[in-house]
Amino acid sequence: GVLGSGDFARSLAIRLVCSGFKVVVGSRNPKRKASLFPAAAEVTFQAEAVKKADVIFVAIFREHYSTLCDLADVLAGKILVDVSNNTEINHHKESNAEYLASLFPACTVVKGFNVVSAWTLQSGARDGNKQVLICSNNQEAKRTVAEIAQVMGFTPVDMGCMSSACEIENIPLRLLPAWKIPIFLALGLFLCFFTYNLIRQVIHPYIREQKNKLYKIPIEVVNTTLPCVSYVMLSLVYLPGVLAACSQLYYGTKYRRFPDWLDQWLQHRKQIGLLSFFCAALHAVYSLCLPMRRSHRYLLIETAVKQAVEKKMTIWVEEEVWRMEIYISVGIIALGLLSLLAITSLPSIANSLNWREFSFIQ
Amino acid sequence: GVLGSGDFARSLAIRLVCSGFKVVVGSRNPKRKASLFPAAAEVTFQAEAVKKADVIFVAIFREHYSTLCDLADVLAGKILVDVSNNTEINHHKESNAEYLASLFPACTVVKGFNVVSAWTLQSGARDGNKQVLICSNNQEAKRTVAEIAQVMGFTPVDMGCMSSACEIENIPLRLLPAWKIPIFLALGLFLCFFTYNLIRQVIHPYIREQKNKLYKIPIEVVNTTLPCVSYVMLSLVYLPGVLAACSQLYYGTKYRRFPDWLDQWLQHRKQIGLLSFFCAALHAVYSLCLPMRRSHRYLLIETAVKQAVEKKMTIWVEEEVWRMEIYISVGIIALGLLSLLAITSLPSIANSLNWREFSFIQ
Amino acid sequence: GVLGSGDFARSLAIRLVCSGFKVVVGSRNPKRKASLFPAAAEVTFQAEAVKKADVIFVAIFREHYSTLCDLADVLAGKILVDVSNNTEINHHKESNAEYLASLFPACTVVKGFNVVSAWTLQSGARDGNKQVLICSNNQEAKRTVAEIAQVMGFTPVDMGCMSSACEIENIPLRLLPAWKIPIFLALGLFLCFFTYNLIRQVIHPYIREQKNKLYKIPIEVVNTTLPCVSYVMLSLVYLPGVLAACSQLYYGTKYRRFPDWLDQWLQHRKQIGLLSFFCAALHAVYSLCLPMRRSHRYLLIETAVKQAVEKKMTIWVEEEVWRMEIYISVGIIALGLLSLLAITSLPSIANSLNWREFSFIQ
Repeated sequence: GVLGSGDFARSLAIRLVCSGFKVVVGSRNPKRKASLFPAAAEVTFQAEAVKKADVIFVAIFREHYSTLCDLADVLAGKILVDVSNNTEINHHKESNAEYLASLFPACTVVKGFNVVSAWTLQSGARDGNKQVLICSNNQEAKRTVAEIAQVMGFTPVDMGCMSSACEIENIPLRLLPAWKIPIFLALGLFLCFFTYNLIRQVIHPYIREQKNKLYKIPIEVVNTTLPCVSYVMLSLVYLPGVLAACSQLYYGTKYRRFPDWLDQWLQHRKQIGLLSFFCAALHAVYSLCLPMRRSHRYLLIETAVKQAVEKKMTIWVEEEVWRMEIYISVGIIALGLLSLLAITSLPSIANSLNWREFSFIQ
Repeated sequence: GVLGSGDFARSLAIRLVCSGFKVVVGSRNPKRKASLFPAAAEVTFQAEAVKKADVIFVAIFREHYSTLCDLADVLAGKILVDVSNNTEINHHKESNAEYLASLFPACTVVKGFNVVSAWTLQSGARDGNKQVLICSNNQEAKRTVAEIAQVMGFTPVDMGCMSSACEIENIPLRLLPAWKIPIFLALGLFLCFFTYNLIRQVIHPYIREQKNKLYKIPIEVVNTTLPCVSYVMLSLVYLPGVLAACSQLYYGTKYRRFPDWLDQWLQHRKQIGLLSFFCAALHAVYSLCLPMRRSHRYLLIETAVKQAVEKKMTIWVEEEVWRMEIYISVGIIALGLLSLLAITSLPSIANSLNWREFSFIQ
Repeated sequence: GVLGSGDFARSLAIRLVCSGFKVVVGSRNPKRKASLFPAAAEVTFQAEAVKKADVIFVAIFREHYSTLCDLADVLAGKILVDVSNNTEINHHKESNAEYLASLFPACTVVKGFNVVSAWTLQSGARDGNKQVLICSNNQEAKRTVAEIAQVMGFTPVDMGCMSSACEIENIPLRLLPAWKIPIFLALGLFLCFFTYNLIRQVIHPYIREQKNKLYKIPIEVVNTTLPCVSYVMLSLVYLPGVLAACSQLYYGTKYRRFPDWLDQWLQHRKQIGLLSFFCAALHAVYSLCLPMRRSHRYLLIETAVKQAVEKKMTIWVEEEVWRMEIYISVGIIALGLLSLLAITSLPSIANSLNWREFSFIQ
């Protein structure tokens, strides 16, 4: 059974019919809404639909849950599947599913399907995300809904009891939570180093020698800033592991929980590492662009003209040549290794490595 | 039961035996063929094999389906699984499975396993594609075959009723259908812009000033063409979304289907975007190669010599310097952002994002 | 039932409880260990735990298997799941699971869950690798354990009978086995070509003309070596396919096994190809770095000064210009095509292509 006649109710009914289920849709205005649903689904009044179904998908907004209270008697003993989503993280004190359960104590409420979009329901789970997170206090009901999800082509994932409902409802609303701290960290570091390099390369020569080097800001200053950020970020990837090991040695046990800040830090290592790689890659591109610039060309020609006028035939400085050759070749090798690390962090590759291979590459 | 003794029949029997099923193979020449099959599978005459089995995989070519007509009586009431493939898209008017069903009206025909190769069957589905698309008019039979597929280690996907058989049979024959239009579009745009740039940079100076700039064709003309193609393609990614929104506003409903051309366009956005990124990346590589060229070196030296002979000590043009610095740094940032977009279009990463994250990155 | 109180036993019990199973933990010191397990799991003495459970996870080290011999009577008829791992590949003559089966002939032993880490068990299989490889001589027991794995959120993969236990136990210990030969091959080729280029570009000019070109070693010599390695590796990707086809034509059958060396070679093609791409990409980066070097700058200025002093106004050599332009543009196109090949070898993309598309791109 499906209660509701919105986009999601419609897609759900279509998918259920396609998967071979008998579907009854309950609507307050069955005649007007019937055309929206597939012909194989029976569209009728809510009370009637509820009577005919054992598992009922409640595809209506939280605000309208209370309108179902008239049906409390017919609903008693049935499995209600709460598929609702919120518009804000932790919008209400209790999750929608818990609220529904409190309204209908005689029903078994299962939270699920909210992470699936109406579009995925209609187009099939072939390309999109296939997981359907399910939680409930009743194991039997949970298993029934999980089986329905499986027949519909999804992969049910058991998230435990009803207290996880809040977490499940927040999933479609989260916005790259693991990236927030690392990105602000990278921006902060970038600002610090940028200011330092700006003073050193532009402001200081201007004050001391009145030389106008402002043209260096967009590329050269940024280019000396990026590797600093990259290095510090890379060290921040390996530091928390050392701290965690020290903590374990100090307390003599590995069952003691790490302090919260260390735990958070350990969990953000992958994101910090990827940002470090991103800065390193940008540094490589910026460096490669240096000889393309007009300023590089002008400086080169001016030096050549000066040398020619003074008739100095050679300007070769062996030490400078070697410094640059070694600097560049070490840089390329480091970038190559970091690229391998970045590639192994792609989910599809990381999943094909066992723990020993992963730690070897790290 | 397996009917047939080709590559596919063999691999199927091996896999079924490995998954713990009792397998009977029906062959017209059981003695000669027995050696091809695993010892645990019983190889016997077709009629006998059919008698012993409830689910029969018909692993023979469509052309030979009619040779089974003698077995119609023994086959009655059994589930026939059509695993056949065609050699051309829409080769026959009706799909192989529908043809089989018309030959044996007393049997239940299920289409499936054709998207799996003999090699995947033998080596196990661990690395390759695990999906087995199944369709049938009989829900019970479909579920039985789906369970067999699951025990064999595949992920059965319900494709609905028999009319989908044609679609399923075309899947192994399709050749990047979503890429055809975007690639021709990119080639067309490239040709147009290439001709324009060729006239502007090579033919026009030749006619007006008799200057031979033919050497610019392989790199410089291509390099000015690529970003034009990239820009136009990128705008074509975002344009259909705007048109779709306008159409929804105009008709005042989101349930009205878009016209076919707009629907097609909307579905090709990802491919157009990736080609736009590919052109942008090529443009970056071409630009980085500019200072490596002999012509760049010669022009530089010639300018220096001219300046030296005329004893002009400075050629610095502040405006030119700034234009280039800003152009390059904006280009790098744009390429970095496009790279992020391209990375999130990798299936394994796209699947780990929810809708809000995906649209945020877009 | 879970026997043992280590990390793995603990994580296993937590996960089983979360998935809705009734869990009994058997420990030799239940009072001291009870605090490690979730409250919902009953922690008791081993003999008692075994009596209450039908499926028993043996989460203790192989060395301590014999300590369970006292429980042989109570264990009789139960399903024992061997979850153990070794510390070395092929450490013992028989696999742990076979050893366990020999100790308890009255039990049904199933090998499984060893490829899953304690961490994955606790955190859920959402991100990590979801496959649980299972093998046993008893189909019934195997199916029971596979169902448990499925309810726990894993994807059970049937690996056949007990003789596969050894293979399954080696999986968490393997260290990129498919990469070993290709990497040594690449290193060997690199050394050969590097020596040749070193002699040609550095040692030979030194002996003949006493010119010190040592500065060329870190970048220029490496840069001429990389494309040689890349070319040879790329040819080694396509050669075995030709040899295999010849062998099939010669013997007139495709059922004859290839000789072992050819089989090995065919299986390493993907890795050899990726290393070839890696060398080509490094070559591209090295080439792009060439104009950044001090030596390049010095040579340029010296040429300019020499020309200026001699008042030669032009040094343009049309042939040299064209050679370089064509060389670079062909290089970029080749790198672009190799990149496409490398991208399609990513597991998540390869899985979305059918055989015809894959061979078209190749």
